[in-house]
Amino acid sequence: MKKIQVQTEQAMYPIWVGQDLLSKTAELLHGEGLRPTPVVVTNPTVWRLHGRTLQRALKPVFGRFPIITIGDGERYKNRRTLQQIHDGLFHAHADRHSWVLSFGGGVVGDIAGFAAATFMRGIAIAHVPTTLLAQVDSAIGGKVGIDVPQGKNLIGAFHQPRAVLSDPSVLKTLSGRELAAGLYEVVKYGAIRSASLLSYVEKNIEDILRRDGTTLEHVVAECSRIKARVVGRDEKEGGLRVILNFGHTVGHALEAATGYRRFRHGEAVAWGMMAVLGLGAGIGLAGEEECARINRLIHNIEALPGLGGIEWESVWNALGRDKKFRGGKIRLVFLRRIGETEIREDIDAALLRNYLKAFLRENANAPGTRSC
Amino acid sequence: MKKIQVQTEQAMYPIWVGQDLLSKTAELLHGEGLRPTPVVVTNPTVWRLHGRTLQRALKPVFGRFPIITIGDGERYKNRRTLQQIHDGLFHAHADRHSWVLSFGGGVVGDIAGFAAATFMRGIAIAHVPTTLLAQVDSAIGGKVGIDVPQGKNLIGAFHQPRAVLSDPSVLKTLSGRELAAGLYEVVKYGAIRSASLLSYVEKNIEDILRRDGTTLEHVVAECSRIKARVVGRDEKEGGLRVILNFGHTVGHALEAATGYRRFRHGEAVAWGMMAVLGLGAGIGLAGEEECARINRLIHNIEALPGLGGIEWESVWNALGRDKKFRGGKIRLVFLRRIGETEIREDIDAALLRNYLKAFLRENANAPGTRSC
Repeated sequence: MKKIQVQTEQAMYPIWVGQDLLSKTAELLHGEGLRPTPVVVTNPTVWRLHGRTLQRALKPVFGRFPIITIGDGERYKNRRTLQQIHDGLFHAHADRHSWVLSFGGGVVGDIAGFAAATFMRGIAIAHVPTTLLAQVDSAIGGKVGIDVPQGKNLIGAFHQPRAVLSDPSVLKTLSGRELAAGLYEVVKYGAIRSASLLSYVEKNIEDILRRDGTTLEHVVAECSRIKARVVGRDEKEGGLRVILNFGHTVGHALEAATGYRRFRHGEAVAWGMMAVLGLGAGIGLAGEEECARINRLIHNIEALPGLGGIEWESVWNALGRDKKFRGGKIRLVFLRRIGETEIREDIDAALLRNYLKAFLRENANAPGTRSC
Repeated sequence: MKKIQVQTEQAMYPIWVGQDLLSKTAELLHGEGLRPTPVVVTNPTVWRLHGRTLQRALKPVFGRFPIITIGDGERYKNRRTLQQIHDGLFHAHADRHSWVLSFGGGVVGDIAGFAAATFMRGIAIAHVPTTLLAQVDSAIGGKVGIDVPQGKNLIGAFHQPRAVLSDPSVLKTLSGRELAAGLYEVVKYGAIRSASLLSYVEKNIEDILRRDGTTLEHVVAECSRIKARVVGRDEKEGGLRVILNFGHTVGHALEAATGYRRFRHGEAVAWGMMAVLGLGAGIGLAGEEECARINRLIHNIEALPGLGGIEWESVWNALGRDKKFRGGKIRLVFLRRIGETEIREDIDAALLRNYLKAFLRENANAPGTRSC
């Protein structure tokens, strides 16, 4: 088991990463002072696969606990589900000393976190993420929220968890597509902060894809370490944390333009990274070698859904609504070289528009090869 | 003009109190670094009475500004109005660097504050409160939220404003009932923290009721000072801030039991204070003299709506859902003597139940005289 400490201005908490850690959930969380009994927020898929393990782990310490089951999928990350969780908390007679245990992927963690942040002005939460994406990214750092018709994550809060417990064993039940979606975020961490992680993923991609526990544990721990460090230095995205948005500005726009239906978040980020790498290579803000290397790695993970049929105007409009927009300027994170990012807000709008138009066209089916 | 500084762990901000300060809104807020243009949240009543003054004050500095008008009254402090404000912010192309100016009473400040707390994970807000209640209480301290069917303020957050600007001149347009509702909270501050404020209110009650500007400025400034000090020591109600709930536990229950229709918040608090003073006097947790003195002052302010027809069971059930409940125990703030509170969680439930039952019966029409 690896323990990584997150330390922000407002909070300090541990991330535990280890195989078969799920069975130790209760003792670890109880050791952090979390009591009395948690209210568990999960979805039916996760509960069917891993509910019994969690139940067996919690029962000796916490006894019986209430469970709130929400719909499975990004389309449930909305106001209605938020109210469902709040109502469930009231129904369970939760008060301001209660706490929530989120048990699921990014959607469960984000919306349960936002529900906890706003229930009686904020109650504690611990995350037990069950997807690779949630383990390496969304469970760490306190960003919580919901999607609204105007865009993804536009209503939310910062609410740091009291602990994060990541068990890579549960990743064995992920579909290939879901695993891949998380891996694209792993690639992102490697690209922006760790050449060694990037090489490790390249070398061990087969072990990762067959879900080897030791390999996944290393990957999850490394990513957690990177995210913990970035978040620790910049809790509320005033500066450094912006680099975590590498690939996300265009990625979010692609998700919005396709009604959050075509892509998993990580897939859209993969496209977003390739787009900004290609743009960067074209205007001297990214090395062609880095661009080609990351494109290659993304290719080797799994086939991405293509960009065919997406109206570039809707991508453009979605970009304009993105939170990263500042005073009408689009803020993009470029990758100078592995581990070295550059944030720019001065990219010519016409250039960007034309580039995206061409990028959509060239990648109608799958990642094109002329992107760098 | 008086300037009171609030200093919490997370924030520092000024409260300005002064007659005709409304006309200086723009320069004061601009001086605090608030820019660019605010999005103003208000209600039609306030806007009709004072909108032009604010508009004239803001225009030279901020130019034209978007206005979001919400329904007037506690029944609009709900999820639907919250969404209306969020939608209005999106419509105004607000981004995470935008800020909100709340212009109205407690409902406007609380819900605009919660909308700001959750819009893109939190944007800045400044409060320009237009009721006595909001000036002395709700605009200060960062408690924001909405009511839900399960109870008042049960969904919300802590979100400190960047500044509070209180102009007692705007109180001239308040109805007698609205002024009185705020005055009961002033009585609360005097009771729990300041014998001199309590005496001042007793001596100057006529000047206050005829809305004399200088007298009101003194009262608002004194209350702001008290609240600022309490909140500064205990931002999130871990300890000291609990004393501000004097009269509120029973008050909230009365509001809930009457569907938030019969009482203004301050009126319910007045009843709550009398209830807990009477209970306290009966069991040796309050002086009879203090009880009689505060009852007398409350009588001298304005006739309260009576308690007739309220089922004591519904009051009891509402008490059970209150946030101040801890592990099934009711936490009550008693007044030992003026300026000295005692928080108790060990009051016998049967005793409390019987007392409340009798209290409701004896005060069916207006405050009874046998309460102490």
